[in-house]
Amino acid sequence: MTQGRTRTMDATFAPVVENPRAGGRIVLVCEHASNHIPARWGDLGLSAEQRRAHIAWDPGALAVARGLARQLDAVLVHAPVSRLVYDCNRAPDMAGAMPARSEVHDIPGNAAITGDERLARTESVYLPWVHGLHAVIQRRIALGQHPVIVTVHSFTPIYFGKPRRVELGVIHDADPALAVAILAAAQRHTRLNAELNAPYSALDDVTHTLRLQATPYGLPNVMLEIRNDLIADASACAAMAQTLAPVINMGVVEIQRQAKAG
Amino acid sequence: MTQGRTRTMDATFAPVVENPRAGGRIVLVCEHASNHIPARWGDLGLSAEQRRAHIAWDPGALAVARGLARQLDAVLVHAPVSRLVYDCNRAPDMAGAMPARSEVHDIPGNAAITGDERLARTESVYLPWVHGLHAVIQRRIALGQHPVIVTVHSFTPIYFGKPRRVELGVIHDADPALAVAILAAAQRHTRLNAELNAPYSALDDVTHTLRLQATPYGLPNVMLEIRNDLIADASACAAMAQTLAPVINMGVVEIQRQAKAG
Repeated sequence: MTQGRTRTMDATFAPVVENPRAGGRIVLVCEHASNHIPARWGDLGLSAEQRRAHIAWDPGALAVARGLARQLDAVLVHAPVSRLVYDCNRAPDMAGAMPARSEVHDIPGNAAITGDERLARTESVYLPWVHGLHAVIQRRIALGQHPVIVTVHSFTPIYFGKPRRVELGVIHDADPALAVAILAAAQRHTRLNAELNAPYSALDDVTHTLRLQATPYGLPNVMLEIRNDLIADASACAAMAQTLAPVINMGVVEIQRQAKAG
Repeated sequence: MTQGRTRTMDATFAPVVENPRAGGRIVLVCEHASNHIPARWGDLGLSAEQRRAHIAWDPGALAVARGLARQLDAVLVHAPVSRLVYDCNRAPDMAGAMPARSEVHDIPGNAAITGDERLARTESVYLPWVHGLHAVIQRRIALGQHPVIVTVHSFTPIYFGKPRRVELGVIHDADPALAVAILAAAQRHTRLNAELNAPYSALDDVTHTLRLQATPYGLPNVMLEIRNDLIADASACAAMAQTLAPVINMGVVEIQRQAKAG
């Protein structure tokens, strides 16, 4: 147990917390912020191009989340390791946690993971992530700050050869209130093609973070998915944050109104 | 953040893990195992008698859980601090987390808790508890062991002056399957007056641990409540463990059968 505990506390793969003293209610979360593969996992048998592709991370998501953090006075928590080493939005027994295949790509370094290796990745990436994010949220709850959890993702415009028309996906877990309010604001106040529970939904097991960090505490929560061709460079990311910050704010104001009315 | 992180890692209030290499599926949990009040909180303004009473802990629960751990080849995780300092089965914003009153007793040391003190107790008791238990469960998930979560509690036979007839309460959160199976086994194979969701239920916010540690992972789970006059000394605790171990086993076998059939 002692060895396991030491590995769990390994500071290297702890989540990065930006803007920790932010005063706003919103906690921004970016599970797929980085395509970094730490040296101990080599290149997982992938080409440099594959390691830059959407299978390794959510391109643009971190830059958009940083823009949102500034505009919403929000704390931002993001993961420092590629989802191909461990996908922090998956439980350790899900196939996608350490995927052997992602879209059309085989991941050779994940083809034959032993139980010990599965345990090592869980301890060195997943546990520090979950516990670090949980601590940020619980400190705010203890101080009476009523956090709102917003996870920020991006998706590829072409998946299995098929183009996707949706530009902004607004996805909910058990409690749809915030997602519905944000979708309404996006449809009213932006030109984005915004859809509820697209390009996928909680039924596809993509809401693990919400299920674990928000739902048990009754915290309002939503997962945002942005098509990555719309956030392909720094200025596009900044513009998207400008567009989405007021939309998210309107959503939060709306659920606060509903809570008062109810 | 650094100061907070250091306090969170304080080994003093980390959960106690017994039988860590157990081979069985069951993870036994005892949130209210101890009535220990660490020196920094003095006596919370309570008499020695009050600090020995059910308001401070669940008398007998740990001894029963230890007996179960032996008989079921189960790992046991228990909290080392009194529920009056921090009730590890409550979120930090619940009134019961650091209660100012418990049943008919005022808790003077909890009468006027500041935000900083609420944060300090959350960091030094609640976070190490949640993260320690979570790590035990996730390691088992990573190794493909399909954990089953069973929390062990005791309740006072007289509450607000009224006697309680129920002897064994079997309480569920979102997934009732294991509770229903264990209740059926208890009614068939013991003389205990066993009831579902008594003396209280998830609606009373008593299933926080199950909601946080089991439900998001789809793990079978149940909360057991034993009337504490039935486990008042070591031999009564041992006998209760003898009675309940086969009942719990039958419940687990039944849900395994259902999973195969379904």
